[in-house]
Amino acid sequence: MQSVMLTGMQVADRSQAPLYVRTAETFIHQVANGALRPGDRVPSLRKLSRQQGVSLSTALQAYMWLENRGYLDARPQSGFYVRTPLAKLIPEPQFETGKSQPTSLGTNAVLEEVIRSASDAAYIPFGAGCASAELFPNRRLNLIMRRILHRQPLHSANYDFPPGVEAFRRQIARRSLAIRCEVSPRDVVVTAGALEAISLSLRAVALPGDVIAVESPLYFGILECVAALKMQILEIPTHPQQGMDLEHLERAIHRHKIKACVTMTNCHNPLGYVLPDQHKRALIALTARSNVAVIEDDLYGDLAYEDPRPLTAKSFDRKGLVLLCSSFSKILSPGYRIGWILAGRFRAEVERLKLVTSMAAPSLPQLVVAEYLESGGYDRHVRRLRAMLACQMESVRQAIAKYFPAGTRISRPAGGYMLWIELPSKVDALKLHRAALAERISILPGRLFSATGRYKNYIRINCGHVWTESHDRAVLTLGRLCERQL
Amino acid sequence: MQSVMLTGMQVADRSQAPLYVRTAETFIHQVANGALRPGDRVPSLRKLSRQQGVSLSTALQAYMWLENRGYLDARPQSGFYVRTPLAKLIPEPQFETGKSQPTSLGTNAVLEEVIRSASDAAYIPFGAGCASAELFPNRRLNLIMRRILHRQPLHSANYDFPPGVEAFRRQIARRSLAIRCEVSPRDVVVTAGALEAISLSLRAVALPGDVIAVESPLYFGILECVAALKMQILEIPTHPQQGMDLEHLERAIHRHKIKACVTMTNCHNPLGYVLPDQHKRALIALTARSNVAVIEDDLYGDLAYEDPRPLTAKSFDRKGLVLLCSSFSKILSPGYRIGWILAGRFRAEVERLKLVTSMAAPSLPQLVVAEYLESGGYDRHVRRLRAMLACQMESVRQAIAKYFPAGTRISRPAGGYMLWIELPSKVDALKLHRAALAERISILPGRLFSATGRYKNYIRINCGHVWTESHDRAVLTLGRLCERQL
Repeated sequence: MQSVMLTGMQVADRSQAPLYVRTAETFIHQVANGALRPGDRVPSLRKLSRQQGVSLSTALQAYMWLENRGYLDARPQSGFYVRTPLAKLIPEPQFETGKSQPTSLGTNAVLEEVIRSASDAAYIPFGAGCASAELFPNRRLNLIMRRILHRQPLHSANYDFPPGVEAFRRQIARRSLAIRCEVSPRDVVVTAGALEAISLSLRAVALPGDVIAVESPLYFGILECVAALKMQILEIPTHPQQGMDLEHLERAIHRHKIKACVTMTNCHNPLGYVLPDQHKRALIALTARSNVAVIEDDLYGDLAYEDPRPLTAKSFDRKGLVLLCSSFSKILSPGYRIGWILAGRFRAEVERLKLVTSMAAPSLPQLVVAEYLESGGYDRHVRRLRAMLACQMESVRQAIAKYFPAGTRISRPAGGYMLWIELPSKVDALKLHRAALAERISILPGRLFSATGRYKNYIRINCGHVWTESHDRAVLTLGRLCERQL
Repeated sequence: MQSVMLTGMQVADRSQAPLYVRTAETFIHQVANGALRPGDRVPSLRKLSRQQGVSLSTALQAYMWLENRGYLDARPQSGFYVRTPLAKLIPEPQFETGKSQPTSLGTNAVLEEVIRSASDAAYIPFGAGCASAELFPNRRLNLIMRRILHRQPLHSANYDFPPGVEAFRRQIARRSLAIRCEVSPRDVVVTAGALEAISLSLRAVALPGDVIAVESPLYFGILECVAALKMQILEIPTHPQQGMDLEHLERAIHRHKIKACVTMTNCHNPLGYVLPDQHKRALIALTARSNVAVIEDDLYGDLAYEDPRPLTAKSFDRKGLVLLCSSFSKILSPGYRIGWILAGRFRAEVERLKLVTSMAAPSLPQLVVAEYLESGGYDRHVRRLRAMLACQMESVRQAIAKYFPAGTRISRPAGGYMLWIELPSKVDALKLHRAALAERISILPGRLFSATGRYKNYIRINCGHVWTESHDRAVLTLGRLCERQL
């Protein structure tokens, strides 16, 4: 199911990781992309040393590191062989179906704990969805910013009223060809990140009290956003690879007068799947029949392992009913606060709402990102970032497979950097979360991902951070805290 | 009523204006701050030349320029005397009272025209509320930004989750002493500008369908913001100097179950008044009795001519019912998108709404502004900006007095940079606005400032731009376009 295609990967940027780790990681990529399969013999130490231009001892360290993490078997007198990683033997979380009723969402005290621990460097950051700061192209972006400060000293001395800075919108329009959406710069409305994009989209298509269909589980930020707009949430059972149960959705559309459907079709947060094209097409066919608007969150779309990147539901939209929301917060810079909407037939309304809600988007970041995209460094950066994240994700999966109790299930993401973990049913993830906080480990309890109290024995793990020994220890600690509840 | 106190004014920054204009402007300041009064004799040409270190011909040009604009009378054999400027003889717009009914606001096509012309340099910018780019301390801010890029290259590589960057909030908390609000950095929630601050405040204190009391006239952005949240607007008649009619407000609170009251107590947009302290106190006493939340927009507060700056309604708040909203968009940089809320008892709710609506505020601008405030350049800049704006405003007032038809009334602002103009009742301001657009002049028709179709013969003029001959011609054109309707 997990079609990993990491072509042209380079880890050259990880100057902070030891050489043997960087050497080892090229093997993880080869396993991930299928170039190496379980049972394959890897090159001899001498050959590896020659091929990669590293010393024999570095080559040995690399293989021992891989062996230690369950990637290789050392067979005496024969060499090293690719092993089936533990994590592959562990099943995915189960698909749970059932009835769904519109719900409102209460204020969430857990959320505050999560945010507080996310802002504190003392915590192991498995909680909020952030990547390590050093994974972003900070130097390049700063360089471009310096140039703009010099060239356009008045860069921020005016309001860039909606739809936003033209140069930025032009780049977004160009890149939209990759998802086969023919849009002009005029169709792009710039927002303060993807969440504001979703919030404005919801307000453009629905009124307070209206029912919004969402995947279940779904990223808590969207659930909270819908709830804060006083709209009702209807959770549609969602398969860990096939996405939303469309029959269920169809019945719900008729029963509950659904106004809009919020969906993450690529690198779903938290499930990790990339929805196959035929499912995207089927979703659009279904919603278009009833004129239901589709708010598609493509925040992680560029981080799918597929190359070229996957299409979106909007790629199949012929009626202008899809509002595609995205941002560069996960790929370039969370602190820039730059996102956008391709709003289809709702463009004018979205643009007006942006104006009367927050007036304009920040100017300078739009100029910087436009120049970065124009200059062509983006695709190279994305390939590198994707490879790094895949590596990190695999490290976390391995560690969980090793340390967590029997009965644990782990998602098999096709991109992004989130893992969704089903713990044995006796484990209360909220208790685990609190116990973990006491050990200075931040995780997300599953119930944040539902408005109806589901996923009590689930957790989400953020794999955006460069893997270290202390992360390994933290997973060991989490495993022990789970055991204690059994 | 207009207590202008422009101490320590310097126009040294206006290197683009001719020397004689700069010399002349010091007299306008002296008239504005009361140092010179109508009938006073100004220094002889020779004395002026010595005092200011300018040539005799520059001194003569300065006086002729002032005479031409109605500031000075030349009396043969005697010298130049301060004259009562025409604009002073023109009365203020009238106070209109009447019944008020809760209203919703429809989508506004005029707004789109206004925004479009505001983004186009071909138009004379009397419309949207923007100041000239060169009035902001761009060089200083860019310098600080460069330093931060060097010192903290990862400045934007993390989310600065609500409440926002601590260093910035600390500065805001310190500055709040000037309005006698004792707040800690923890009480400051950073937003994307003042309008997002108001939008989040409204959502924190009221639900869709609730009735919100507002001044009438009031800045259209706030009216649109309330309407877009599906709340109802109740307009309270507002006196051009005394502010909201409190008796009317009191009756309305009981009749319409008002949930919140939105108010601009300082440098009101568009009326220009600074509400006297006893009125601020009375407003708070009234709303506190009924536990009505007060959303106070202090966006222009630092631009009041008084020194020290005026207090706010929040200064008199003892129950935590006032949410003070502000930003640096009018003083430092519109494109930074940095605002804040001091939300009193609603702090936690406002912080949560910020998180689930737009996740975080931009990081870098918070760091830059924090350092700028810390370094102490802010107060000097504000004094200079205030003086410039007062000058520009006076130029516009003079020109309107000269070119507009009899029966025109002009507001007497105590700060900010907006003029509110009542035209003879026969003039349809919407027609005037359209005719002006055809002449490449952007103005705001009065009906934008009401949800109930009032102010048909009013316009708002933005005086934020450095005064030039083409601005003078534009006012002449507007005057002629008015005449055509009589």
